[in-house]
Parts: sequence; C-alpha cells; structure tokens
Amino acid sequence: MRIAVIGATGYSGTEALRLLAPRTDLEVVWVGSHTQAGKTVKTVLPQLQNTTFSELIFADYTNPTVFPEGTEVVLLALPHGEALQIVPQLVEQDLRVIDFSGDFRLDKTAYEKWYGRPWDTLYSGQAVYGLPELNKKWIKDATLIANPGCYATTAALALLPLVEAGWIDCSRIMIDAKSGVSGAGKAPTTGTHFVEVQESLRAYKVGTHQHTPEIEQTLHEARRRWQGEEQNARDSERPTVLMTTQLLPIRRGIYVTAYALLHEDIEQEELYTLYTKRYEQEPFVQVLPIGQVPEIRYVVGTNLCQIGLHVDHRTRTVLVMATLDNLIKGAAGQAIQNLNIMGDLGEATGLPIDPWF
Amino acid sequence: MRIAVIGATGYSGTEALRLLAPRTDLEVVWVGSHTQAGKTVKTVLPQLQNTTFSELIFADYTNPTVFPEGTEVVLLALPHGEALQIVPQLVEQDLRVIDFSGDFRLDKTAYEKWYGRPWDTLYSGQAVYGLPELNKKWIKDATLIANPGCYATTAALALLPLVEAGWIDCSRIMIDAKSGVSGAGKAPTTGTHFVEVQESLRAYKVGTHQHTPEIEQTLHEARRRWQGEEQNARDSERPTVLMTTQLLPIRRGIYVTAYALLHEDIEQEELYTLYTKRYEQEPFVQVLPIGQVPEIRYVVGTNLCQIGLHVDHRTRTVLVMATLDNLIKGAAGQAIQNLNIMGDLGEATGLPIDPWF
Amino acid sequence: MRIAVIGATGYSGTEALRLLAPRTDLEVVWVGSHTQAGKTVKTVLPQLQNTTFSELIFADYTNPTVFPEGTEVVLLALPHGEALQIVPQLVEQDLRVIDFSGDFRLDKTAYEKWYGRPWDTLYSGQAVYGLPELNKKWIKDATLIANPGCYATTAALALLPLVEAGWIDCSRIMIDAKSGVSGAGKAPTTGTHFVEVQESLRAYKVGTHQHTPEIEQTLHEARRRWQGEEQNARDSERPTVLMTTQLLPIRRGIYVTAYALLHEDIEQEELYTLYTKRYEQEPFVQVLPIGQVPEIRYVVGTNLCQIGLHVDHRTRTVLVMATLDNLIKGAAGQAIQNLNIMGDLGEATGLPIDPWF
Amino acid sequence: MRIAVIGATGYSGTEALRLLAPRTDLEVVWVGSHTQAGKTVKTVLPQLQNTTFSELIFADYTNPTVFPEGTEVVLLALPHGEALQIVPQLVEQDLRVIDFSGDFRLDKTAYEKWYGRPWDTLYSGQAVYGLPELNKKWIKDATLIANPGCYATTAALALLPLVEAGWIDCSRIMIDAKSGVSGAGKAPTTGTHFVEVQESLRAYKVGTHQHTPEIEQTLHEARRRWQGEEQNARDSERPTVLMTTQLLPIRRGIYVTAYALLHEDIEQEELYTLYTKRYEQEPFVQVLPIGQVPEIRYVVGTNLCQIGLHVDHRTRTVLVMATLDNLIKGAAGQAIQNLNIMGDLGEATGLPIDPWF
Repeated sequence: MRIAVIGATGYSGTEALRLLAPRTDLEVVWVGSHTQAGKTVKTVLPQLQNTTFSELIFADYTNPTVFPEGTEVVLLALPHGEALQIVPQLVEQDLRVIDFSGDFRLDKTAYEKWYGRPWDTLYSGQAVYGLPELNKKWIKDATLIANPGCYATTAALALLPLVEAGWIDCSRIMIDAKSGVSGAGKAPTTGTHFVEVQESLRAYKVGTHQHTPEIEQTLHEARRRWQGEEQNARDSERPTVLMTTQLLPIRRGIYVTAYALLHEDIEQEELYTLYTKRYEQEPFVQVLPIGQVPEIRYVVGTNLCQIGLHVDHRTRTVLVMATLDNLIKGAAGQAIQNLNIMGDLGEATGLPIDPWF
Repeated sequence: MRIAVIGATGYSGTEALRLLAPRTDLEVVWVGSHTQAGKTVKTVLPQLQNTTFSELIFADYTNPTVFPEGTEVVLLALPHGEALQIVPQLVEQDLRVIDFSGDFRLDKTAYEKWYGRPWDTLYSGQAVYGLPELNKKWIKDATLIANPGCYATTAALALLPLVEAGWIDCSRIMIDAKSGVSGAGKAPTTGTHFVEVQESLRAYKVGTHQHTPEIEQTLHEARRRWQGEEQNARDSERPTVLMTTQLLPIRRGIYVTAYALLHEDIEQEELYTLYTKRYEQEPFVQVLPIGQVPEIRYVVGTNLCQIGLHVDHRTRTVLVMATLDNLIKGAAGQAIQNLNIMGDLGEATGLPIDPWF
Repeated sequence: MRIAVIGATGYSGTEALRLLAPRTDLEVVWVGSHTQAGKTVKTVLPQLQNTTFSELIFADYTNPTVFPEGTEVVLLALPHGEALQIVPQLVEQDLRVIDFSGDFRLDKTAYEKWYGRPWDTLYSGQAVYGLPELNKKWIKDATLIANPGCYATTAALALLPLVEAGWIDCSRIMIDAKSGVSGAGKAPTTGTHFVEVQESLRAYKVGTHQHTPEIEQTLHEARRRWQGEEQNARDSERPTVLMTTQLLPIRRGIYVTAYALLHEDIEQEELYTLYTKRYEQEPFVQVLPIGQVPEIRYVVGTNLCQIGLHVDHRTRTVLVMATLDNLIKGAAGQAIQNLNIMGDLGEATGLPIDPWF
Repeated sequence: MRIAVIGATGYSGTEALRLLAPRTDLEVVWVGSHTQAGKTVKTVLPQLQNTTFSELIFADYTNPTVFPEGTEVVLLALPHGEALQIVPQLVEQDLRVIDFSGDFRLDKTAYEKWYGRPWDTLYSGQAVYGLPELNKKWIKDATLIANPGCYATTAALALLPLVEAGWIDCSRIMIDAKSGVSGAGKAPTTGTHFVEVQESLRAYKVGTHQHTPEIEQTLHEARRRWQGEEQNARDSERPTVLMTTQLLPIRRGIYVTAYALLHEDIEQEELYTLYTKRYEQEPFVQVLPIGQVPEIRYVVGTNLCQIGLHVDHRTRTVLVMATLDNLIKGAAGQAIQNLNIMGDLGEATGLPIDPWF
C-alpha cells in the first residue's frame, strides 16, 4: 500500500512518518511540506535518517500535485482551513484521504459557529468520523476520513459508554481537560515559549474550544444509535458539554477528567462492568480497575487511551479520567489505526502499546 | 512581637521563616525541628544565612519546651496528628497558636470520618478557622487558629461569593484541582521522585481528599451566616463537593477549576460584579476581568489568590478558575496574614504581591 | 533620580522594571518599546500592575526622543546592533547610559571579528565595562556603561582571582557553560519552543560564542592591572578561552564550570583563601567553603554570584564552579548595581540576595 | 536462550525487561527483586503487563537460588557491593553473568581507592569489561561481564579514537558530564525529590566520582593495545581524568563535553575522519558531521551514542560532545548488546535506534 503524507513536518505529520517507518506492508512514497519544500527527509528530520524514505524530497503541495503511480491513501496533516482547499483535488484523483484537521468533522451549523468559516459545499458532510471505537464499520470503505481531534478523542472515549447506556444527564457534562505543549503545534509562539510555559498552568479558550461541538456530535450520534426513540423521549436534546482546556508544562499527553450527573446512583462495579464490556473488543482502550488512576506517563509513546472510573455517591456524580498521547491516539496513531482498517491490514498493526517509560 | 516556629524545616515552616526574615516588627526567637535538632538555621537552610535568626539552633519539640521570655505566638507547622498532641501544652503556657495542620479545622464528625482519627477532646472545636476573607473579626482575638489547607483555601475563595449569594446548586459542586509537588511535602517518596513526576500528570485520593469536608464546612458556614433562614428553606443541606486532586510537574502552585450549576442563567458582568464587590476589601484576592484567565506563574512567590470567571450559558454552569502559591497563600503566607491580624500589625505587612516572574 | 528604560518589554528590560519598582530613591519616568508602543505598562506586563509606573505608555524609541525633564540615566536593553545606533543621540542629550548589549564591550578588533559588524566610530571604545567587581572606581563617573554579558560575568567572576594571582596557564582556559532559556530572549523561536527544549540538552555556538572575547578582554585587563610587567614576562599573550555554551531546560540561571591548568600545585585552602580575600568587599559574590558546590536554585531571584572551588591534584587543575541568575546579576541586576554606583545610592540597594526557593 | 534478571525493579533492571519483552529469540524465565518479592511483574510494573513474563513472580535472591532448567545468562542489576556477594554462587552454577554494578570493573588498586571496599578475591579481575566498541572479541566467550558505567561509557566513546591515535595529552583530560535523574536510581532521596531538582543544576562528587578510574583504565587499555611501546615512550603514565558530574532536571540522558589538549594542531576534517573510521563498524556510535552538535532528545529511547566534534585552534584543544540514554546504552541496552554478542544473536538485535521524539 503506497502512502503520501502532506504536512509532514508538523508534529502530527512527523509522528505519522515515525510510526510508518518500520512498516513493511506500507510504503511512504511521497512527502509534502510547504515550509521545507526541496529538502530531504533526513536533513529536516534527522531522527528519521534510518528510514526507507529518508531520501525523499519534501514537495510543495500548494500546486496541483501528481502523486507517484499507485499511491492509494493520503494522510493530510494540515491546519484547519487549508485541508478544505486541498481535499477536492485529492478525492478527484481517486485517492482516499485521512484528514487530521477539523475541516470535515462537523455538520454545517456547528462548523460555521465554532470555526467561524463557511462550510465547503463539495465534500463537507461526506467524511466518516474516524473514531474506530464508534465507526469501525463505516471507516473500512470510506473515501474521506475526518480524523478526530485530540481532546475530542479523549473525551469521547471517556463518555461513550455512559451516554450509550443513558445513565447520565447529557445536558450538563463538565470536561476538565489538560494538554501538553505539542498539542499547540510546532510553530514557535509566545504561548509555546519555554519560559512562558514551564512551572505554570493556565486555562485557554474557556468555553469556546472548537473540540466542544465535536464531542457533542459524537455523543449525540452514539446516543441516537444505541438508544433510539426511547432515550430521545427522556433526554431529547443534543448533549451539551462545557470544556475547560488547560496547558500543561509537558511535551505530550492529554488528561481529561469528566464529570457527569447520574440519573440514579450506581455501584462502582456496575460502572466498571459497563466500561469493560463496552471496550472489550477495542485493542487501544484500557479500562483500569476501580481504585486505579491513569497517568500520562503510562500512555506517552503508545496508541492507548487509559481510563479510570469513580462513582461519587455523595454528589451522585460519575468521574471519568482518561489519558492518551495527543500525537498518537490523539492524531497520527489514530490516523494509522484508520488506515489499517481501510486497508484491512489489522487494526493494531504497527501501533505501540508499550509506554516510553 | 516574639515568634516561635515549630516544624521549621518542612517546606511550609521554612517558607514562614523566609517571609518573616525581613520583618522588623517581629522577631523569630525559637525554632523547632525534630529531624534537624541541634543544628543551626544557617547550616540546614543556607538560603537563610543572611537573616537575624541564622544562628538559632533547632530544638527538639517533643519534650515539654520552655520558650524564650516574651514569646507570644507559635507557628506550628507539623503534620496532621502531631499538632493535636502538642497544642495543649502550648495553649497552657498562654501562647497563641497558628496551626498549619488539619487537626483543628473540622468538627468531630467530619474529622473522624475523613482523617480516621479520634477527635481530641480538649481543644478540638476551639479553633478559629483562619481564612481572613471569611473570619477576619474572629481571628483578631483568637488563641488557636486552624490555618486552612491549600486546596481548601483556593476552592473556598473560588466559591464563597456564589454560595453567599445563593446562586448555585450546592448539592453538586465539582472541583478539579491541580497542585505542584511541594504540596506533597519535603519527605522523599516515590510519589515525589523527579522521574515519576516529570512529564506526567495523575489524579490521587479521588473523591477522598481530606480537604473536601473543609471546603464543605467553610461554604456551609458562609451560607448560614449570609443567607440565614431564607436560604435554608431553599437549599437546606450542607454543600457537597466532589474534588479531584491531581499532581502537576511543577514545584509550587495550585490551580482550581470549579464547576457549579446555576439556579438561573446570569450575565458575565453580573458574575464579575458579584466577585469584585465581595472581595473589594481583601488585599490578596485578585478578580480578573471577564475574558482573562489566571496563570500559576502570576501568583508564585506571592500571597495572592487570582480568580477568573466564566458563565457558560449552554450548560447554565459557572466556571471559576482560581490559583495561588500553595506554600504562601496556601500555608505560610496565610499564617502570617493571620498573625498580622492577631497582632494588629497590618494585614498585608510583609506579604509579597509581586510574582517571581 | 529619574530613569528611562528602553527595550522595556524584553526579558532583561522587564526585569529591570521589576527590580526598580519598589525603589523610593529612584523613579522610572519613561519606558520605550518598539513592539508594544502605545500600550500601558499594566496592560502589557500585568505582573507590574501594582507599580508607580503602571500607567506609563510605552513609547517608540526609533525616532529622536524627548525624555521627561530631569531624566538622568537611560537603561538601554536592546539587541546587539540596535544599541549602536541609538547611543549617540542619548549621550548628546547629556544622558548617562547603561547599555545591556554587546555593542560597546569590546575593542575594535574583537568586535569586528566576533560580532561581524563594523565598529561604530563615535562612542565605541568610550564605554566603561560595567563589572563592578573589577571596575568600580571607573563606573562611578562613567557616561556610558557597557553592562557585561551573562556568561561573561559568570566566567569572569569565576576566574578573576586566579588570573590576577598569576597561578594559571592563561593560554588554555576551558569554560563549560550552561544557561536557562530566558538567556535566549523573549522572541519565540524553534530553539525556545517548549517541546524542543524540555527533557534535553544541547551545545550551541561551539567555540564561537560572542562572550568569549569579552571574557578574554576582562581577564587580560585584570592581569595587566594586577601583575604588571613581571607577569607579562611569564605569560605574555592575551588569555585564551574555549567556551562551550549549552541550553538547559530551565527558565533562569547560568552554571559555569571552568577548568584551568595550575602552574604549580596548591592546597584547597590556599585557593579558598585567595577567593575569599579577593571578594571580601564584594556584596554579591559568595565564595562557598571547600567541599560545597553552588546550585542554580540558590541564586535564582538574586543578584548573587555563588562560587565553588576544587583543586584536582591528579591533573594539577583548578575547577571553579560559578552560578548566577542570568536576568539579574547577568543583566538587569548588574545594571542596577552600576546605576547605584553611578548615583552614589549604595551599591547593594534594592538588589535581592534571598533566592526564590 | 533463557535469561534471569536480578534486581529487576530498579530503573536499569526494569529497562532490561522492557527491551527484552518483544524478543522471540530469548526468554525471560526468572526475575528477582528483594523489595518486591512475592508479587507478579504485572502488578509491580503495569507498563509490562502485555509481556510474556507478566505473570512471573519476583523472587528474593538473597538466599541461594535455583534457576529454571536451562537458564544460561543472568543480568545482575544490583547496587555496588551487593553484586560482589552474589556473583560467586552464579558462576559456580555455570551461569554466565552480566553485572551492571561497578564491582568487577576495576583492578584492585583502583577499586579499593575509589569504592573504599576490599576487592573480592575469587572473581575480581576475572571479568571482561563489557564495552563492545573496545572488547567485542573477548565478550563473545566471557563468563562474567562487567557492564560499563553510564558516564564511563559516554566518556570512553568520546575519547577512544583520540587516545588510540596518540593525538592528545593524556595527563590532563577534562570531562564535564551531566546526567538526568534516573542515573541516581529509583530510591527516593532528597537529591531526587522533584522540588530539589527542577529548575536547577548542581555539581556533585566533584573530582571523586567512581567512574573516573573506570574511564582512565579504559583509555589506558586502549592506548596500550593500539600504541604499544612507541607511545609508551612518549606518554608513559596512565591517562588522568578530571570529571565533573552534574545533575540535570531531566529524566534520562547523559551529556559529556570532553576537553583534551592536542599535541599538534589538526584540521576539523582530520578529526572527523579519525572518528568515522574508528567507529564505521559500530552500529550504535553515530559521529555527526563537523558543525553539528548532539542533543539528548535525539538519543533518549535508543542504544545510540551520538558524538559531535570540534577543534579549537586558538587553545589547541579538541572538544568532544557525546550523548546517550543512561538507562539504555549506559546500562540495560549495553547489557543486551553484550548478551547479543555472547549468544551470537546479532549485536544490534532488539536494540532501538529511533529516538522517543
């Protein structure tokens, strides 16, 4: 299977290259980078000098591009807004596309409200949302995958079982989310300057983070599919989420603590059973026994999402803690998981589960 | 005014010494340390070698102690459980005591439930809870001050105005709290080992942190005092809090994000007005304008608590972010603020408001 | 004494403002910033909102500037190359200038070689090199002070006593230097991006750092002055230094380990005596007893330079460890030390010696 | 090949287990831990729960131990002093041993001087020093391997080519070395407490680090072997090294900058050629082109040692920068490299060269 990676010098694109490097069932045949066009992979990314594609030259992708014969899938790791413009020419070349940006994840209303951009008319709404734990069967044949956001993946995996079971009040879900700095991208800014980040913490985009509607849409879809009309009678609106995102002084990792109000009190073990049963077929979701908590360091370097659970009887609240590596399960690893499903290569192939620890 | 400090080599005790060092209206005349007994201050704490008390010798405090003539106040910076045993002999010597531990903060029921220790019968319940923003007038004449916990201070200051105003549902308050490692104390443990903490985050004591009942008691007292019977008719139970505490890979600083459900939707400006009015006389509470968020780095080194506010209309929730330095406003600085009030020395005297930044 | 600060929004300029804020014998009357022109101090630098100058508006300094009546001294915290252009107009207005840049530190040959810029003909060579421990008596009456570089200050203080005593081979001095990220300035670059710095270390400008000739010039001057002709007969050339600079994943602090070959073996105590005697009048140089080592955390937040000493008899080498805060003793603090001397305000006035610890 | 690991719960022992986990040509059949005896691997080390040996129970190794049938090699990851006592019983069971400690690395004089312990009489001096880049052919058939220290490996690889070539003055080699905190071991101490390490740097064991004689012995052996009598005439003594070790606020990684005085000036390219030729057969030594510098982050997670070179003509000094991961090439990875050689399994098998980045 021949692969092209566009936006290959950003953190997510480079991570995809790193994860693809040891694969023998795939071949990276083309790499695109606007900023590094004309240079070889090994020059720009010395950590990839031992790979089969180390001599490839980054191409500028802004002009219409001819890909090498036999290219089947494009990983598109561009910022929001840029993906919109390039996807049509890719799809029209009969390429399958896995898009890392937010451009194809939302419906029209949500996209225009939260991203403040007009919805592209040609392929918007045509993408399959690439969360394998929800949409595996549609991913297999998709032409265009909207690879989920890092916060959105963590929060969705934290909450899916509860929403599908109809146990929580979906009108007021609180998500307290923290991310390492690589989530802010590779471009140097004041907000990513070492001196401004180290020994601190701050919230940002309070109540306005663009992953909020993505989580809501995912939870809505999950509830609709599992609960059908009965649930709708009880809890008819789209789930509503308040997410606080905060910048951690670490390089990689997301930690979400989600708080949801239970319709009825439950036992810790019921909660554990719900989650283990829901995820028993999922190779990358680890549900920890009651009493254990996830730690970022146990998932960094892996495609895992680790989940810890707690019922607080005093407030009749459920607390779900979830952690993953924002560049792997939150971006490049999930994209490769989707690629594996699309190419029938084995969902877990080439995706690490042993942490860098 | 002559001061003794017991437990002077832990992080909080040392911080008290550091803050007291430049004072000319106070004199540190005695220092106690079990682990460093017999050594001088300047040997054990080289950073304090330029102080007036650098030649004092740490005394062991486990035996009955005679303090220097004229000693008026003891700062007691011992772990929970040890303070209980030493307070009686201090009070009986007519010393006034500011206790940093949790031993005198709670009523009998809460103490025995959350600390798992029997309540001391002699002075338990005799302490004034030393949160100046709530209890200033009782602090002035107190013999025994229970200096509040670091998380408890942050959460209480974050929520007091809302609880006093009766705007929120007190039965389900969510507090997502993060602390730097100095909060775990100076004793080396696996949990404070650099390699285990760096580049990670983990929750701990989920739903069981001993500051939880302290917050509830404070909010309860505040509501009772301000609302009287009218409020009680509406919301009669003690407030109930679910707190998640998490360990940040930084040295100092607490960041709390509190989520509370509003009885009725409000405007951002109403919220801001409520807080600025409530805290206009308080020298160490900084309410940020709507749209600004607190950052840990802006309070480290200071006795400030910085508060940011947000109303989320979609979930009818109020989000309060609050940050302080756990060793200053969360421990030693607050103790000195209490000392200043007790001695009529000017509440803000000697307490820094300029961050180490 | 009325002071203007140009380049007040960079790390060094802001640090100068922070240190000047509590002074009552000085007044900051004018602040200049190219990037923030038109905004108030309190808006751009919220941590300075409680100062007397919080309402000052940053002026653009690129046009000829009229300073407020009575302005006596300008702190000039601009990058290399920009200071050269602005100093003449300041001096011609009869202002005294303390320049933080490298533009006036070197003689013509060294400047043109290491900075690769032509030497300004008007005031170059007219500055007094502002290392108080070497040049105090000339600083007092200087019109133009070249405030030393951060690495250069650390290395000079580490080596001055040995060079003046003539104990070491000056032709091959090795300086292994490490700096926190604030030394690289506030502008966001790939090299200051959190993700690129954290959990790593790398050398940079190997053998080519522009502070190298500054150290050599300082040591040369010291030797010339103290040793006269006798020494020259033995060791006639200018001292030659090889410096390796390395980027530490911390915010503030420089750590230098200097290695010099001894002409003759000496005892540890002789070395200690040499240093304590040399620096006994200097308020900001702390010589540690043999067996103790400096630590960055003990100097951060202070104007101190802490020095540790070791004679290695096996290699007949002396090892000097020195540490300081690059923004204080390595920049703004030293500038204020110079200002204090110039204005006869007490050399140590307003300069902290208690670390942020 | 069946392997036992003793001391498997320390950082180095656990790292060995992690690296051995994916191997199919080897089997970990027994694990020993004094502190965790009786527990399973997966309980104590959750990050290894997906391995073939996750159900093994840690055995206490202090009593004479019977290893599973067919066990061939023991990795012995115990502290200095403990290895001495256990090696005899292992060798007498016909097991081959790779010892991570310093107990068998030195000759009698050096061991007793630098470790302050008597030399064991039975197997001391019987070990092959396990630096593959020097001793590959003796490692193959060794019964007892003394696996090199982390600093010693870095410094030896940095200097071997220069010493073998006879280009430098071996009587005064300066090694400025920095290490991450995992090098100090897993036991919590004040020196590894997060609050004491973060945002700081300090030297330790100045001039007395026990890896110093190990480096000297290695360089001496290299010189003797390559230069023979001719060199001895010129430079007859054992090389003498002054090493300064410093604690970096990072988890993994060593960075060495070594300074050596050249007998005669050389060109940058000569130096580069010397190193590339010396290491062209070595799979884990990467010599960077002149002008490039190593970075810790490029070797963390790998068994690589990355080397950068610089000739400083002004001081006629050569500067060599070398970096490696102290737990991999500096401990467990090098042990497995030795194991691979001993078992003829392919020197590079199972050893990562792609950094965690």
